[in-house]
Amino acid sequence: MPELRQDPCTKEWVIMARERARRPDEFVGHTRDAPSDRRTCAFCPGNEHMTPTDIWRLTTDDQSWRIRVVPNKFPALSPEAGPEHHDGAGLYRRMDGYGRHEVIVETPDHDQILALAPTEAVRDVLVTFRERYQALRQDPGVKLVLIFKNHGPRAGTSMEHPHCQIIATPVIPSFIRRKYEVAIQHYDDTGRCIYCDIVRLEREVRDRVVLESDHFIVFEPYASRSPFETWIAPLHHDSSFGHVKEAQLEDLARILLQTLLRLHRGLGNPDFNFVVHTAPVEDETKPYYLWHFEITPRLTTPAGFELGSRISVNSCLPEDAAAFLRSVDVDG
Amino acid sequence: MPELRQDPCTKEWVIMARERARRPDEFVGHTRDAPSDRRTCAFCPGNEHMTPTDIWRLTTDDQSWRIRVVPNKFPALSPEAGPEHHDGAGLYRRMDGYGRHEVIVETPDHDQILALAPTEAVRDVLVTFRERYQALRQDPGVKLVLIFKNHGPRAGTSMEHPHCQIIATPVIPSFIRRKYEVAIQHYDDTGRCIYCDIVRLEREVRDRVVLESDHFIVFEPYASRSPFETWIAPLHHDSSFGHVKEAQLEDLARILLQTLLRLHRGLGNPDFNFVVHTAPVEDETKPYYLWHFEITPRLTTPAGFELGSRISVNSCLPEDAAAFLRSVDVDG
Repeated sequence: MPELRQDPCTKEWVIMARERARRPDEFVGHTRDAPSDRRTCAFCPGNEHMTPTDIWRLTTDDQSWRIRVVPNKFPALSPEAGPEHHDGAGLYRRMDGYGRHEVIVETPDHDQILALAPTEAVRDVLVTFRERYQALRQDPGVKLVLIFKNHGPRAGTSMEHPHCQIIATPVIPSFIRRKYEVAIQHYDDTGRCIYCDIVRLEREVRDRVVLESDHFIVFEPYASRSPFETWIAPLHHDSSFGHVKEAQLEDLARILLQTLLRLHRGLGNPDFNFVVHTAPVEDETKPYYLWHFEITPRLTTPAGFELGSRISVNSCLPEDAAAFLRSVDVDG
Repeated sequence: MPELRQDPCTKEWVIMARERARRPDEFVGHTRDAPSDRRTCAFCPGNEHMTPTDIWRLTTDDQSWRIRVVPNKFPALSPEAGPEHHDGAGLYRRMDGYGRHEVIVETPDHDQILALAPTEAVRDVLVTFRERYQALRQDPGVKLVLIFKNHGPRAGTSMEHPHCQIIATPVIPSFIRRKYEVAIQHYDDTGRCIYCDIVRLEREVRDRVVLESDHFIVFEPYASRSPFETWIAPLHHDSSFGHVKEAQLEDLARILLQTLLRLHRGLGNPDFNFVVHTAPVEDETKPYYLWHFEITPRLTTPAGFELGSRISVNSCLPEDAAAFLRSVDVDG
């Protein structure tokens, strides 16, 4: 059973993932490589027996799947743990690792790259995000639903076949709490959402903007923590991704694809993560948070200074990154 | 000139390292590799002209150097920036990147591995840490002195020749502020230092302890964020590494070496970072913080979930890691 432990000095939670556990001697040498053989790829058609049973699927006209959602075989958090069991005695605090961990297999095609996929395929992935978000938020033991993608080994992928993941947690992470404290303070000071204020300012200043559409803006944040950190944010306030409408989803698919394509062509298919930042389930209608995507190309390695101070060192100004991404030829 | 920018949503600082700046197109493909050719290694004897002039050195009887400290040629922070210039208008806050960034070349030997070095060599490195800490803390613009080592490419090393680094910052990082809030709360609740309480508890429980000496304990913390995260902490309260005494330094050299050797042998020379955590200069005598070393082998890659939630997923229990490290044969 997975277990959550709280760092007594920082109040940050750590998931001790016993289901993913490796014996100490398995760390000797290098890490496990992603399997690239289609015959042994658990996400390829024909190998469905290698994963747990589907939770959800989108099918084609001939009833074969185009997207599958399955429970993660080695979950970081598990519904088999009790949702409320805290252990609070003494200096250390722990709880059972209740939660959900799902994998979204984006496509039957082992070699598809999301940045080069058809718009409809990206829209289907986003529809799946929304469907699974809506399902997982119903679970009374779930506090936060985090949807993310790891592309490439430097982004922590263990499977090559294109996929996204969802982890639903039984706690609100202390980092999210901290962001909320700041956002609430800003709201109390000004009556406005700080994220919407940022969107408004970036639309005025324009030098960190990459793209804009009817419903979204793509920009490099002022204090980007790493080169080419890229946000996609709605132009109108909403704290939850769960509220995204059909018309917005169509537009989001197009602008996400254009953004990924600019990163793909401009930087040569970089490894990257993206995360859908959305409010905790209990805060879905709050006036001080704005859901958004954060895309982080993994171009540099955080070193001792970053580990010790949590101050990031970024060797590329966001204004330069935005100008570069605007200049990438996506029509040729 | 480097620049510090504050993230308006998290209040975290980011160093925009213009001196280390790379044009956007320099990120295409892969990152720069560490040079391994001794003829072009700036830290090898004979190539001293390739670095800025020494700030400090330890010499042998024949006056050749055994340890050199030089300013970083591509500093993340620079004394040429003004120490007090904040720019607070509007939503975004920035300041000039005042600070110090020094490199400690540990040895003339390009191929030395600290875990295999003689005790006296490790002691000399620690003496250098203390000397430079004492010098940098005098600077009225410096708030925190962070000493660290990056070993291997997965730990963010750009130079192969054994070295450590020191960055002295003009701000107290928000992460350190957060740790202090927790430590002060514990002190106000109990009258005790939370870190000393942890040391006391670990000495009692013993299942996460790797080693103990006259002055120090080595243990895997209860909520280790990654496999084999290892702390070396003093047995007696002191918030600043700057106060370390001669007898402690001797003992620390021995126990650091034994710890690094166990990691080296047990895990096959893993890439790792270590950081000397010490109180900010203005808090050197506070009763609620304990200076210590944190060693982080870089065996796994944080992925999208970790980026989005800052919750770490650790696939190796600290109790198992400690038992494994205790069992490593260091005498053979």
